[in-house]
Amino acid sequence: MKAGVFDSGIGGLTVVKSLLKAKLLEEIIYYGDTARVPYGTKDKSTIISYSLEALEFFKNFDLDILIIACNSVSAYALNEIRENIDIPVVGVIESGIMAVENSISTKDSNILVLGTKATISSNLYNNGLLKNGFKNITSIATPLFVPLVEEGIFEGAILDETMKLYFKDIQNIDVVILGCTHFPLIENKISKYLNSAKTIHSGDAIVKFLLQEYDLKINNNYDTKITFFATSSPDSLKEVAHKWLNI
Amino acid sequence: MKAGVFDSGIGGLTVVKSLLKAKLLEEIIYYGDTARVPYGTKDKSTIISYSLEALEFFKNFDLDILIIACNSVSAYALNEIRENIDIPVVGVIESGIMAVENSISTKDSNILVLGTKATISSNLYNNGLLKNGFKNITSIATPLFVPLVEEGIFEGAILDETMKLYFKDIQNIDVVILGCTHFPLIENKISKYLNSAKTIHSGDAIVKFLLQEYDLKINNNYDTKITFFATSSPDSLKEVAHKWLNI
Repeated sequence: MKAGVFDSGIGGLTVVKSLLKAKLLEEIIYYGDTARVPYGTKDKSTIISYSLEALEFFKNFDLDILIIACNSVSAYALNEIRENIDIPVVGVIESGIMAVENSISTKDSNILVLGTKATISSNLYNNGLLKNGFKNITSIATPLFVPLVEEGIFEGAILDETMKLYFKDIQNIDVVILGCTHFPLIENKISKYLNSAKTIHSGDAIVKFLLQEYDLKINNNYDTKITFFATSSPDSLKEVAHKWLNI
Repeated sequence: MKAGVFDSGIGGLTVVKSLLKAKLLEEIIYYGDTARVPYGTKDKSTIISYSLEALEFFKNFDLDILIIACNSVSAYALNEIRENIDIPVVGVIESGIMAVENSISTKDSNILVLGTKATISSNLYNNGLLKNGFKNITSIATPLFVPLVEEGIFEGAILDETMKLYFKDIQNIDVVILGCTHFPLIENKISKYLNSAKTIHSGDAIVKFLLQEYDLKINNNYDTKITFFATSSPDSLKEVAHKWLNI
């Protein structure tokens, strides 16, 4: 099984980490559009146009499946991507919603969705959760978490003050959806700030989704081969991959 | 006098503000590459390639001068831009250095250069100041100021904590160069944190540079006509322009 993983930049490495740990794939082609990151502040037509350019790149490889690690792309360009390639394309939003279904038993739970401006304004998490019977959903765009994580700020006063700003009206949260690939890097801090709320991590969610919906099998013998491509500063991407993934 | 103003996004509006106030120009064509902002975290070849694309756009207008508002472009792509267009091209780094020359009397003054990663790693401010006889120069990349300003955070605890992080080893600064178009929006906060250090603002610096080097004249009758172009979300750019420039 050979998968493409598409992300706007380095954040998608948190999804790769889950994929590697799960031993589901023989090979991963990772493409990060580091020249044009972040996508989460851009408008829909720009995100679609950049995503279709990435798709042309992926067509050079004989992929079995394409995984869209970026929530903003999953929110705005999934249909357009699917219309333009003949392999299964999996986004992180549908898998995130399935993960909420699997992790909480009552439809009355208080769910908090965090994401970029693009992801939140698409309302896809919100609508998907409502459709599944959840009633108490709060969505907030937390765009500053992205540059903080990119600058390696995973703790400390700046992050604390940023959470204080974003979460000032938030209370009694049971489950928080980390609707951006950068957020798992501050997962513990977010959960702790929200009184140990349960977290939904796009990478773990997509692994479960692949196992359930695409009949992929865990193979403990897999030593997944991974190749990284970036549209700018490929060495930085490799350096971060080395640090985050221990490869 | 018809000028093009090129910026990676909305930050260049701080330069436009100075140009409008100075009444130097009859017309401004503003181009913000909002689809690919920020440039300051990208590598040199990417910045050059995007700058040359912007140049093709500017060639559609009959410009007298092209002003590069973005420090990262001024740092990495000025030569390439000049080689590809037949009108004068002015960057913000040479004008910033001239402004330091004009504003302080002693070469022993302590100068702090702030900028994006691209601007700081180019060492252009540093080398220019050294060449002009200044000896005590400290340069630091302060990339988080960019998203903070873009999110409208001009004061408060997050900004205070970010300054505390960046300025923890900084003291006795006489002059601080705001080497990024976003930074004038937090000029007072930065100056206050650094014990009322004098600030060098790219917009004001370029006005003085144009008056001195290009023999432009102030004309109080000018009601500068300005047209905005953006590669993504043009309405957001216009909204910010309306707010920042009162137009």
